Parts: sequence; structure tokens; C-alpha cells
Amino acid sequence: MSLSISSKKDPGFARPRLEANQLRRLGIDTGYEHVVYLDVDSPICRSEGFGPHSRLSLRVGEREILATLNLVHAGLLTANEAGLSESAWLSLRPAPGEKVVIAHPPSVDSMAHVRAKIFGKTLDAGAFEAIIRDIVAHRYSRIDMAAFITASSNHLTPDEVIALTRAMVQTGRQLHWNRPLVVDKHCIGGLAGNRTTPIVVAIAAELGLTMPKTSSRAITSPAGTADTMAVLTQVDLDEARMRHVVETCGGCIAWGGAMNLAPADDLLIHIERALDIDSAGQMVASVLSKKIAAGSTHVMIDIPVGPTAKVRDETEAQALAQLLVHVGAAFGLHVRVLVSDGTQPIGRGIGPALEAHDVLAVLRNEPHAPADLRKHALNIAAAVLELGGIASADRALQVATQCLQSGRAWQRFQAICNAQGGLRMPGRAAYQYMVSAPHSGQITCIDNRRLSRAAKLAGAPASPLAGLTLDVHLGDTVLAGQALFTLHAQSPGELAYAMEYVSRHRSIIGVEALS
Amino acid sequence: MSLSISSKKDPGFARPRLEANQLRRLGIDTGYEHVVYLDVDSPICRSEGFGPHSRLSLRVGEREILATLNLVHAGLLTANEAGLSESAWLSLRPAPGEKVVIAHPPSVDSMAHVRAKIFGKTLDAGAFEAIIRDIVAHRYSRIDMAAFITASSNHLTPDEVIALTRAMVQTGRQLHWNRPLVVDKHCIGGLAGNRTTPIVVAIAAELGLTMPKTSSRAITSPAGTADTMAVLTQVDLDEARMRHVVETCGGCIAWGGAMNLAPADDLLIHIERALDIDSAGQMVASVLSKKIAAGSTHVMIDIPVGPTAKVRDETEAQALAQLLVHVGAAFGLHVRVLVSDGTQPIGRGIGPALEAHDVLAVLRNEPHAPADLRKHALNIAAAVLELGGIASADRALQVATQCLQSGRAWQRFQAICNAQGGLRMPGRAAYQYMVSAPHSGQITCIDNRRLSRAAKLAGAPASPLAGLTLDVHLGDTVLAGQALFTLHAQSPGELAYAMEYVSRHRSIIGVEALS
Repeated sequence: MSLSISSKKDPGFARPRLEANQLRRLGIDTGYEHVVYLDVDSPICRSEGFGPHSRLSLRVGEREILATLNLVHAGLLTANEAGLSESAWLSLRPAPGEKVVIAHPPSVDSMAHVRAKIFGKTLDAGAFEAIIRDIVAHRYSRIDMAAFITASSNHLTPDEVIALTRAMVQTGRQLHWNRPLVVDKHCIGGLAGNRTTPIVVAIAAELGLTMPKTSSRAITSPAGTADTMAVLTQVDLDEARMRHVVETCGGCIAWGGAMNLAPADDLLIHIERALDIDSAGQMVASVLSKKIAAGSTHVMIDIPVGPTAKVRDETEAQALAQLLVHVGAAFGLHVRVLVSDGTQPIGRGIGPALEAHDVLAVLRNEPHAPADLRKHALNIAAAVLELGGIASADRALQVATQCLQSGRAWQRFQAICNAQGGLRMPGRAAYQYMVSAPHSGQITCIDNRRLSRAAKLAGAPASPLAGLTLDVHLGDTVLAGQALFTLHAQSPGELAYAMEYVSRHRSIIGVEALS
Repeated sequence: MSLSISSKKDPGFARPRLEANQLRRLGIDTGYEHVVYLDVDSPICRSEGFGPHSRLSLRVGEREILATLNLVHAGLLTANEAGLSESAWLSLRPAPGEKVVIAHPPSVDSMAHVRAKIFGKTLDAGAFEAIIRDIVAHRYSRIDMAAFITASSNHLTPDEVIALTRAMVQTGRQLHWNRPLVVDKHCIGGLAGNRTTPIVVAIAAELGLTMPKTSSRAITSPAGTADTMAVLTQVDLDEARMRHVVETCGGCIAWGGAMNLAPADDLLIHIERALDIDSAGQMVASVLSKKIAAGSTHVMIDIPVGPTAKVRDETEAQALAQLLVHVGAAFGLHVRVLVSDGTQPIGRGIGPALEAHDVLAVLRNEPHAPADLRKHALNIAAAVLELGGIASADRALQVATQCLQSGRAWQRFQAICNAQGGLRMPGRAAYQYMVSAPHSGQITCIDNRRLSRAAKLAGAPASPLAGLTLDVHLGDTVLAGQALFTLHAQSPGELAYAMEYVSRHRSIIGVEALS
């Protein structure tokens, strides 16, 4: 097929291009998905036939992104400008004088694997690698991501979970510790206040284990371990600083977000949470990819089971445990699972600083330290010690308890915080509101999910002092007017929000009158 | 649980509210999904803990929408303003003095059914009704829609397809014609230029059938029937006008978009196209819900089969046909399927006006009218006549042919166009470019999809005169330099785009040298 001009008029080859100074940084945070804004009457829209949500390729120099189009009708942009969302701007980094080429994007070939998965096919390692590579390169739109997550929720074979995990590890950084044994712990979330990590790290490190812990900030919960630790010390460590802390103290408790470990997980998790789906295969790949990337060799996984926890019954917990062990083994990772009681929150505080107070109280052996948090942390520490070969099964709990009681764990925790940038003591929120029992009776249920919601409405985790403190446990008897829980907020508006929510949901804590 | 104030300071109940004059219409078209823009430091974001892509409820008076949040970092909005996307603005219609309440949205309960479907459950009619009701009310985010489509792509039982179809019909308007027999036709797309509808309607109406045809505009193709008809007459008819046309002429060819027939389909189809998934169950629900809502009793469905058509083989076509007949029967709709040759485009033109020229040539019995379009339209018309009881199987084709040849179909078509608002003759595009055979030989393949893409790059359907004309068919022999196809554009830039594409894809039309 040859191209011989025979037009009535010579068309020229005027593919529209923009100069970098025609790009406008609109300052709109669209999350994962790059968005480009074009005037509906711009020459590019007209000539390319772009419509709302078209996918576009934008190229500046060697840098190329795929972006979703939002059309602008009036005022925001001229016909000769293109607006960029924050993520698009930061990825393209247009410099004065550079040319911007906007065009139809190359097709994202790995979506063919997603379609195959939708129609029930089993995918091989190459397919998962291609998919995850494209996701990490931001080539998937949000709906592409949703399709992948949905399609792989119904069933992944164990081999598929291994392939997905490997793809997630390989597309990010991997830490290597040059030690034969690196321990880690993880809790399959869903249980408010369950802040055992700082205590476990302090005990494990004090007893000679290497435990370079990276933790996440909250996504939908009132606090992540990194949020709580950020109240006490610096958690935003670069790799050199983290290595220094681990060299000198045997352990650290850092924010993993800056490390680029299994970055696909951070992207997928937002869509999973929005859709509120969290299948076993995806959960296992998510948890283990982070641990493998962090260089762990032995990991202890806590699965709290309860009607309002993430895992709701023992059968589900056992299936999950089996998959975790099987997939871990494929990477030479020793996984041990502890199935624990997830029927109620652990500790008193829910929210970054309020949980930090609990952690400090346990570490300092204070008389009013929450006994349930202390006990749960010691159980996990014991399992970690056993896994790390420090103590036998029958002695591990005693060794862990002794380490805590003697004050050695507290000393080690202070050393870690000092190495990370200094230990700060958290304050208390200015606005508090006590919710009291309407009548005397026994506590028969505590709704984890709604308590978390109330703590978030009170401002956690963005307001670090905000959240709530729980004054009762299941089975306690209370008198009318006695405190059930107390909301904490840093502003009157936030307190009002949380109060409004609590007043609408009176069954957050159930009090059954005694007959 | 009682609420007794015991805070250190009285918090008041200062839930942030906005006045309508703090809402800004940003003019951003975000498609189906309502978007609200808030400054990252606005009191609402801080106190509610909203992050990028949080879902929000916005209420003004009795009007409430769910919207997705985009956070704005600088400049676009003040901390006391909220920006609205076009769809959000048009749904809320805030009037001066009205209060705007922004809050966490009620949970979208029907997503529980979507999650059940993701995990392989079969859904009942109530579940589909709840899902489709929420989709039509714009309560689903784009990722929620993607999850629903993905989850129902792998398998829907026939009963599920019936339930989905019914839900799609019930959530929109339904037309009733008060006649025992109302015929319709539909083509399972994917074949460029296949513009038989205007010819079929003219013949059917002329021979006494009632055929109130509603057609769509192009979504991803270079032209829909409504785009082609819009070149010739007015298609944006309200119901009264449409009824008048059908009363006086027996048929019409109107744009269905204004009618609100099965509106869920219009919403779902955008996500399906973006994901490039089109499962049998969803296709059947999509096609039949529109026909049932339009009040048809007998429908003739053309399924072109070919390697670059939507349906690629005979087995797939038969399975689809069976499902169409089965689901139609559940609604008392008589469905007849014609499986046709989809190996190459039909007619010469691809693009609104170029296809209109073909239609006119056939209707006016012009000597150079495309024979393939004429033949295919007559076959479909014959099937419609037989389905409508006008002619027996052995005579239907003859009756249809006679109606066309005699000029009666052309007369009827003019009458319909005049009733719709007058018949206009289409023009020709100013810029043309002929693509010629590089060497002598035989035409061995024609790539439908890439031809459509070239026509779109040339400007179709937004530029109604744009597209391309095809000069050869499969099996033709051509001499070097002889025309294969000609691009048509209304601007030099658009022609250049299409030329660039064509030069990069030399196998759009394969010419095999004769030995």
C-alpha cells in the first residue's frame, strides 16, 4: 500500500503539539490515576476524537504517561492549554521549551490477560508480571485496576498467588540484610487499637534478633503502626538511616512507604478498599510481597478472628494460614500463624497518640497499662522468639515477659527511638466527650467497625491526638452513667461530627440489663 | 447509651455547611461519575478525614448526589469553596441561598450483591434490580461499575440475564404503541458501514408494518445510525413528535438517547467499551432491554460473523442467538436472528455523511449504489416482513425487492424524513486523500477495526462529512496505483492524522501479488 497524495488541497502534516508553557499545573490530586484536562473545543480533542475518559498518551522528552481525559467546558483552560493533575505533572516534569505530544496511547497489552482472567482462565507467571509492571507504571486506569482486582478475587490458584507475589516483589526495591535470620511480624488488620508491633520489636531486638520493621500508615483505619510511631519519633527514614538504626539497635519501626517495597500493593490496596473486597489470594500476595521485599526470612502473622474483624471465623483463618505458609515457602520465607481473639479491640486507645500512650504504659510496666494489649504483645513476642530460635516453645512466653518486666524492653525501645531521631511524649487532645452507660448492665457486644468510624470522625489519624479511649471490655458490668468510651478531638467541629455519629449508632457498645 | 456532655470545653455542633454561593461550577466533564473538588485544607476535608477518591454525599434541599472527591492543592479553590463537575452541578442545581450539606455517604447496599457475584454467587431478580437502580441513580463510582461488569462477565445464567434485562427496562421509560405488532431490527455491531436500518424501515413502513426505530449515536465507531440519519434529517425527537411521525408514516428513525429507554445500558456501555469486554449475557441484556423499552413485539437481530467483527465464529453466534431468543421469550418478545457475513465492511462509505450517500444511492436505485449494502438490507427487510406476517418465507425477498425497485421505499423514506423535520442532502468533505495499491494483485484481507480507526482519526463522527470510502472488496483484483480507499476530512489536521495512521498500518487492506 503506497501513500500517494491526491487530495484536492495539500493537507500538510499538522499534528497538534503543545509547548511546555501551555501545560498548566491545576493542583488537583486525582490519586493513582493521571488526569489531563483539555478544553472541549481544543484542536487536539477535535482532531483526535477524544471524549470524556478517553485514555491519552502524553510525551515530554523521554517521559511518557498515560492519562485519563476530563473535558473542560468553560473558563478553566483556553483551547490551547492542557491542564495536568498533580501526579501527571510530577511524572512529566515539563521544562520550559520542551514539546508535549498528546496522542492516542499504545494499547496496554497486559489487559488481554485481565480479560482472560475475567473469563475464568488461569494465568501464568509472565501474565502476572506484565500486569503488575503496567500497574506500577501507572498504565492502568482505575477501572482497569478494578477489573483486575475483581477478576482475581473469585479464585487464584496457589501457583497464581505465588506468581502475583513474585511480580509484586520484582517491581519494587528489595532490601537485603546480610544476616541469616531476619524476623518480622504482621497482623491481618481489622482490629482497632491492636498496637503490638513497637512492644514486639523492642523485645525481639533486646533478645538479639534482627527485626527491621517497616509499617504502613492508615488507609481506612484510625491509625496504622507508622501513624502511632510518628507520634513518638521519626518514622520517615531513608534506607541508610534505617540500616544505621538496625545495625546499632537490632531493630527499627519505620514507615515503609518511602522504601518503594512492592509498590503495586500500595496502588491495588486503594481500589480494594474502595470496593471493600479483600480476597484471600490478594491478601496473601499483599502481605508476603512486602515481607519478602523487606528482606525478612521468618515472619509471624497474627490473624485476629471475630464477627467484626477482617477474618470472621476459624475455617477462614485456617485456609488463610495454609495459603500464607504455602506461598511463603515458595520464597524460602518461614511463616508462622497465630490465630487470636478478635472479638473486641485491644488496648484502651484508638488513634495515633492514644495508642502510643497504651504502648508506652505497657513498655514502662505502669500499673494501669492495658492488660489485654500487654498479654497479646507478649504472646506474639513469644512466637517471634521461638520462630527466631531464641527460646523453646515452653519457655518463650516466660523469656518475653521477663524482658518486658525487667525494663529491658523499654530501654531498647528508647534506644531505637533515639536512633530514629529522638523520643517525644505524646500530648492529649483538648476536646473530649464521654459516652456513658444508659442503664446498669453487662457489656455484651463491641462493634469494632463503628468504633473505628467514630475515631476517624473525631479526626484520627490526620489529627494525631484524636480518636477514642475505651473504658470497658466484653463481659464487664457497668452502672448507669459509668463511662463506656471517651471521644478525643483537636477541634470542636471534629468532636461534633463524632458525637453526631455516636448518637445515631447507639449499639456501638451493647449494654444488656441484668435480670 | 446516653449522650451526656462531659467535655473540657463545650464543642457546639459546628458541622461545616456551605452556602450555595460557595459552590463553583468548574465546567469539568467527568462523564458518568459526579466529582466534587475540595481544597485539601478545607474544614470539611479535615474534619471528615476525606482523602482523594473518597465518596461524598452532597445534599441541597431534597436533591442528593454521591460524588467522588478530588483534592485541590493550590489556587483553584479557596478553603471555603467546593467545585462541582458538570454532571454534579446539573444534578444538584444549587439556587442562591440554599444550604449545601457535605457528609459521608450512606453505604451503597447493592454493592453487597456485586461482591457476592464476584465470589461466584448467582443473583436473584431483587439483587439485579437493586444494583441497576443504584447505577441509574449515579450511586456507583466508576470502579464500582467496573467491578459489576467484570463480575458478571464470566457467567450469567439465563435467569440472571432475564433479571438483568428486566431491571434495565424498569429503571427507564417504556413506550407503548397500542398496536398488536411493532417490529424492530438490531445489528450486533462491529462492522463498519453496515447502514441498513434506514432502508429496512422505509420498506417495512411502506408495506404496512409499524417500525418506530430508535438508534444510538456512535460510542467507539465512526458512525451510529443516529449519526448518519442526523446528516439527512432531524433525529432528536421528543416522544410526541416521534408518535406523530409513526402515526403518519408507519415508522421513524430517531435518536434513542433523548428517550431515557433503559438508561442503565448507556451508563454500563461506556465502562464495557473502556475495558473492551462485552460478554454474551451483558450484550443480550443491553440489546433486548432497549427493544422491550421501545415497545417492540417482534425483533430481527443481525449477527455479522467475521474475524474482525464483534462475533468471530459461528459457534459463538449460535450461542448468542439462542440466548437472545430465550431471553426475548421471557418478555413476550419474538426474536429472530440472521447470522450474516461479517468478513468485510458493507457499502462504500464509513462515516456519517459517507454512509448517508450509500443509503440514498440504494433507496434511489442509482446504478452505482453499493450492491452489497443493497443485498444485505433486502435480506434483513425480507426477514422483518416475514416476522411481521407480511410475506411468506419464499416470497419475502421478492416483496422487499419490488418495494425498493419500484421507488416506493424511496418515497416512504422521504415522507419519514419530511415528518421528522425535512430531508437534507449531505455534502462532501473538502480534504481527500487516496490510498492506492502498491502493486497489482488480489485483495485478500480488509481489517474492519483499523479502517474504523482511520475513519475516526479523519474526524468521524464529530465531523459528519469525514471518514473514508472503500473502493475494493475481498477477492477483487487491482492494478498497481489503483485506489484501495480514500480518506475524507473537514480539516487538514484531521486528514494528516488519518494519513499518519494509515502509513503506519500498511496491512489495513492486504494485496497479494498474483503469481
